[in-house]
Amino acid sequence: MKVSYPLVLINYKTYLESLGNRGVLLAKTVERISREYGVCMAVAPQFVDITRISKEVSIPVFSQHLDPEPPGSHTGHITPESIKEAGACGTLLNHSERRLRADIIEDSIKRSRELGLLTCVCANTSIIGKALSTLNPDMVAIEPPELIGSGISVSKAKPEVIRSSVEMIKSVSPSVRVLCGAGITEGIDVSRAIELGSEGVLVASGVVKAKDPEKILKDFANSLSR
Amino acid sequence: MKVSYPLVLINYKTYLESLGNRGVLLAKTVERISREYGVCMAVAPQFVDITRISKEVSIPVFSQHLDPEPPGSHTGHITPESIKEAGACGTLLNHSERRLRADIIEDSIKRSRELGLLTCVCANTSIIGKALSTLNPDMVAIEPPELIGSGISVSKAKPEVIRSSVEMIKSVSPSVRVLCGAGITEGIDVSRAIELGSEGVLVASGVVKAKDPEKILKDFANSLSR
Amino acid sequence: MKVSYPLVLINYKTYLESLGNRGVLLAKTVERISREYGVCMAVAPQFVDITRISKEVSIPVFSQHLDPEPPGSHTGHITPESIKEAGACGTLLNHSERRLRADIIEDSIKRSRELGLLTCVCANTSIIGKALSTLNPDMVAIEPPELIGSGISVSKAKPEVIRSSVEMIKSVSPSVRVLCGAGITEGIDVSRAIELGSEGVLVASGVVKAKDPEKILKDFANSLSR
Amino acid sequence: MKVSYPLVLINYKTYLESLGNRGVLLAKTVERISREYGVCMAVAPQFVDITRISKEVSIPVFSQHLDPEPPGSHTGHITPESIKEAGACGTLLNHSERRLRADIIEDSIKRSRELGLLTCVCANTSIIGKALSTLNPDMVAIEPPELIGSGISVSKAKPEVIRSSVEMIKSVSPSVRVLCGAGITEGIDVSRAIELGSEGVLVASGVVKAKDPEKILKDFANSLSR
Repeated sequence: MKVSYPLVLINYKTYLESLGNRGVLLAKTVERISREYGVCMAVAPQFVDITRISKEVSIPVFSQHLDPEPPGSHTGHITPESIKEAGACGTLLNHSERRLRADIIEDSIKRSRELGLLTCVCANTSIIGKALSTLNPDMVAIEPPELIGSGISVSKAKPEVIRSSVEMIKSVSPSVRVLCGAGITEGIDVSRAIELGSEGVLVASGVVKAKDPEKILKDFANSLSR
Repeated sequence: MKVSYPLVLINYKTYLESLGNRGVLLAKTVERISREYGVCMAVAPQFVDITRISKEVSIPVFSQHLDPEPPGSHTGHITPESIKEAGACGTLLNHSERRLRADIIEDSIKRSRELGLLTCVCANTSIIGKALSTLNPDMVAIEPPELIGSGISVSKAKPEVIRSSVEMIKSVSPSVRVLCGAGITEGIDVSRAIELGSEGVLVASGVVKAKDPEKILKDFANSLSR
Repeated sequence: MKVSYPLVLINYKTYLESLGNRGVLLAKTVERISREYGVCMAVAPQFVDITRISKEVSIPVFSQHLDPEPPGSHTGHITPESIKEAGACGTLLNHSERRLRADIIEDSIKRSRELGLLTCVCANTSIIGKALSTLNPDMVAIEPPELIGSGISVSKAKPEVIRSSVEMIKSVSPSVRVLCGAGITEGIDVSRAIELGSEGVLVASGVVKAKDPEKILKDFANSLSR
Repeated sequence: MKVSYPLVLINYKTYLESLGNRGVLLAKTVERISREYGVCMAVAPQFVDITRISKEVSIPVFSQHLDPEPPGSHTGHITPESIKEAGACGTLLNHSERRLRADIIEDSIKRSRELGLLTCVCANTSIIGKALSTLNPDMVAIEPPELIGSGISVSKAKPEVIRSSVEMIKSVSPSVRVLCGAGITEGIDVSRAIELGSEGVLVASGVVKAKDPEKILKDFANSLSR
């Protein structure tokens, strides 16, 4: 599955609402709305669900994390090979809930690239986003951690963080796509994020824990297809 | 799927030979031989393959690891809930290639137990095996790390480690099952391990990377059904 | 410096109140009261202060942590050799603010023992205390983390935790000394802890951040020398 | 103590040869040669020795690592405050033997800067060196890990790594000083490193484990004062 921008990337986290069958159903809703509105939408389910969702749904599927360990005598690691084999087209890395060592981020990006997997590296701050952008990921997602799950969107509460992140990252790594996230719950949050220079959003509870995820997704899609 | 003892638990690690379709095929071979010989055999595939193998094959499936984080706002973690939903009946913990903090082992066992997942905690030495057995896992697997993948079996090279582990663990935790592993490649390694007091074996490359895994598995099964 | 029981072990943590000269002065107060009352009192200062306090004050000095790495090509590690050379007689391990992997606790205890350093392994719960006691440390200190720094003492709020810890630990490791800690701020907390079967207390803010540490220390000493 | 460039920074690691009294004596030799030749030389001893060396010797003293935790209820951490109080003027961070999470490097640099401590961030590769340079450390030290302790110097074996690191780092962070290290054992290694654009060297075993450290240090100083 090809990824295009602007991108709405839905992180399932470890929510029960998006585990197993419910996660497959949500992915099918995402697929339908994505097609209907012509907006690229992707999901990042839990590891055990990647295979099924990749098979049953035609949208880009991301892993939430991977380890750079090579195939072989390693137990309990999430190899890029396994994610790829399962049908994922890419992975999140260094989410604020799963921070990584700098050298491991570098290795993980390199390993992913070799296998043709996209990487979306998360960063708490503009400055760390700039730093990590130089490691040649495909995307950097800026998420002020204090806004994650807050319902107060980064595009409303900290527009300057998006603007400065875009500027700082593009100044050193012009080809890296800049996403943003945290607190995004409605279309206006998404369209503002795009106006501020980002090329997509990372959302989680705003969709997964919404009473009516379909409605929210339509609102997002609408704000992007205008 | 019920687990019974003696148990042959096959750790797929991150080998390419046991990833995706090849892992499903291997699991089907395990299933056939397990039935034919009436010997309980289980597999621990990579995370992305748990769902498929659990569905397509009727043998106990273990995860190679899990994290104690609860469902919710956690990204890139392997929740017990996801493993359970995927059809696993248990998990390895603290493998020598994935060592854990003592308190995290305790939490992971507790969380697994609450969900009805079996835990097989790995230990490098008798003394750490004894210590971890007091945390109430279902099994402790003793594996001298220097023999892992060596082709020299623990039951030949270090019989006293098996014997003393069984003794030390049973003295404080009589209901915990003691497995052993490392370097096991033929039936005689398995039967000796049982004679020395262990109630099962943990194998990996000995099966997964064997030229003819079926032959090895039959040899194992034979040595246990005699 | 010899350690005797009951022991009052004062963890300086990273408080500014006990750093540098202020830490040396506090250690001198501890020394004076310890002598006056004939009660064994020890301190665990920050790493940079171990050498000075060991030299200038005649009480047992503990490290707050150490790493099992051997002398050699390791950067930024706290070797047992360095702690010993600096004059410490022992170390805390696995404090709830510095949790360790099970195998690293085992290695750290072994390394410390070889050098004649005492080990006091901390544990959040009775069950983990029991588990870690089997690794042959000199002491296990039980500290319910929710009471640390709370001012509500473990001996008042959770007497059953002390009692059951002592019982559980002594049942498998009779020679291990059981300490307890968390929220201890006055003499009555200490004497109760001893009545409940523990052989010492681990205190931090209750002394270090007290308006009048000398008064508190005297109250502790009094409650033990009665 | 002021640091000037070119800088020879001697990492004591956890070698016994540089622990305690022997470390103080080595620091005095470094001081004497540094003065005699007018070349800035600094040492990074083990934590327990920072206070003594800072007091007894007039050369810049670095810590080998620090943690970003603030003063307070943290046990077993190496606070910037403690390093500063002990007399250090700066710290190494992210040495290949002590790799750190990207966000922790950022926090550690920020905390050090606030206290007026210099930071020398280590990097395995040019690309990670470039990335970390954007976090505003004072220095970045490039060390190909395969050459560390090899006796084959980076300036001989991988001159292009030094050159490209300098270029890549200066392109995004012109004010960051670029050091290099690994395998440096004689003056010619140092002068070549400087010719290739670096502003100092990080050495360890080449000095600490030398039969005659004084001779080596003079050779270094000579090659820099020519």
